[in-house]
Amino acid sequence: MPGKGLFITFEGMDCSGKTTQMERLASWLRQRGRDVLCTREPGGTPMAESIRSLLLSRNNGETVTPEAELLLFGAARAQHVANVIAPFVNGGGIVLCDRFYDSTTAYQGYARGLDLDFIKELNCFCCGTCTPDLTFLFELPLKESRRRLAARLGGEAPDRLEEEDNRFHQAVHDGFLKIAELSPERIVVIDALKSMDEVTVDIMEVLKNAIE
Amino acid sequence: MPGKGLFITFEGMDCSGKTTQMERLASWLRQRGRDVLCTREPGGTPMAESIRSLLLSRNNGETVTPEAELLLFGAARAQHVANVIAPFVNGGGIVLCDRFYDSTTAYQGYARGLDLDFIKELNCFCCGTCTPDLTFLFELPLKESRRRLAARLGGEAPDRLEEEDNRFHQAVHDGFLKIAELSPERIVVIDALKSMDEVTVDIMEVLKNAIE
Repeated sequence: MPGKGLFITFEGMDCSGKTTQMERLASWLRQRGRDVLCTREPGGTPMAESIRSLLLSRNNGETVTPEAELLLFGAARAQHVANVIAPFVNGGGIVLCDRFYDSTTAYQGYARGLDLDFIKELNCFCCGTCTPDLTFLFELPLKESRRRLAARLGGEAPDRLEEEDNRFHQAVHDGFLKIAELSPERIVVIDALKSMDEVTVDIMEVLKNAIE
Repeated sequence: MPGKGLFITFEGMDCSGKTTQMERLASWLRQRGRDVLCTREPGGTPMAESIRSLLLSRNNGETVTPEAELLLFGAARAQHVANVIAPFVNGGGIVLCDRFYDSTTAYQGYARGLDLDFIKELNCFCCGTCTPDLTFLFELPLKESRRRLAARLGGEAPDRLEEEDNRFHQAVHDGFLKIAELSPERIVVIDALKSMDEVTVDIMEVLKNAIE
């Protein structure tokens, strides 16, 4: 018996520690004999990675409209779910995914102001029956996220979404909290101001219940 | 007075003569002093052309899911409408577009079997208020479309959509006719078995009324 397949997503602001915690969890799960796949959005398949580079680059100055941006994220997700995530979960594996459809709702819905009902339908259309079983939302105040991002980038240029203004990122932040309020059965809010080790302990506690 | 802006689309099977007629019409309109933009879908902006190449190529063997295909067409369209078509029409120009959202409904809806209601919503989402004023549907039986395509390709390989089987292309063909039935106020069906010159005459007749 390979154990029950699981699909776990990691959501939240830039530099909230999602990726680091995901890697720690992956090691912990593998030590327990589980098959684990770490992936990310947008991306996760060669075609979805091509879409990622269209989304995050500046496309030689051509403005990406909010509508096109939303649909490109959706296309990359449909590809990722059908070709990677669903087969792995259906085979009994555990998929850990760095950002998923809650990011679309927060960024393109709450922050860009696109229609939330259409985004909900689109999210369903992209995923079919393969939706996250569990989501960790890394809660980090805007100011701390921006401070950490500046430190991480050093002199490097931010990508097209990172460089949006504070009003935009505050809306993303508040959007994530609203999404968590609306899906308390799936989303666990993690205090990302705690130390890395404390956060790992918090996540393990939740995860132990999920994988048993 | 630059005259009323107009958005005209050309739809139908492969090799039904859309592109040739579009070019003839463009010359005729320009001779009458109108600003004309000829464009095509998927494509029409640098970013949308990048999406086009993802859509029509074989992506190193990665299967494009029907859902991702639909959303990529949508993303390219949103970009094309906002950055190219709408500004030109709003400035009083005439846009002639080789394929538009009826192709999405015919190929991804009627032929691939994706949900027609979702496609309708998606089409609205991509276009906003900039929808076609007039559409010419080039009606050509499947057998003749396939014969002409084989002749045009010579030994060259067809693209990813062209190479679909006859059942698929028959569904596209029948889908186009259903779409025309549902929107008789916008769509004019053109008999593409007629000679090029006869077709041009038929189109001019319709167009004269539209631009007056």
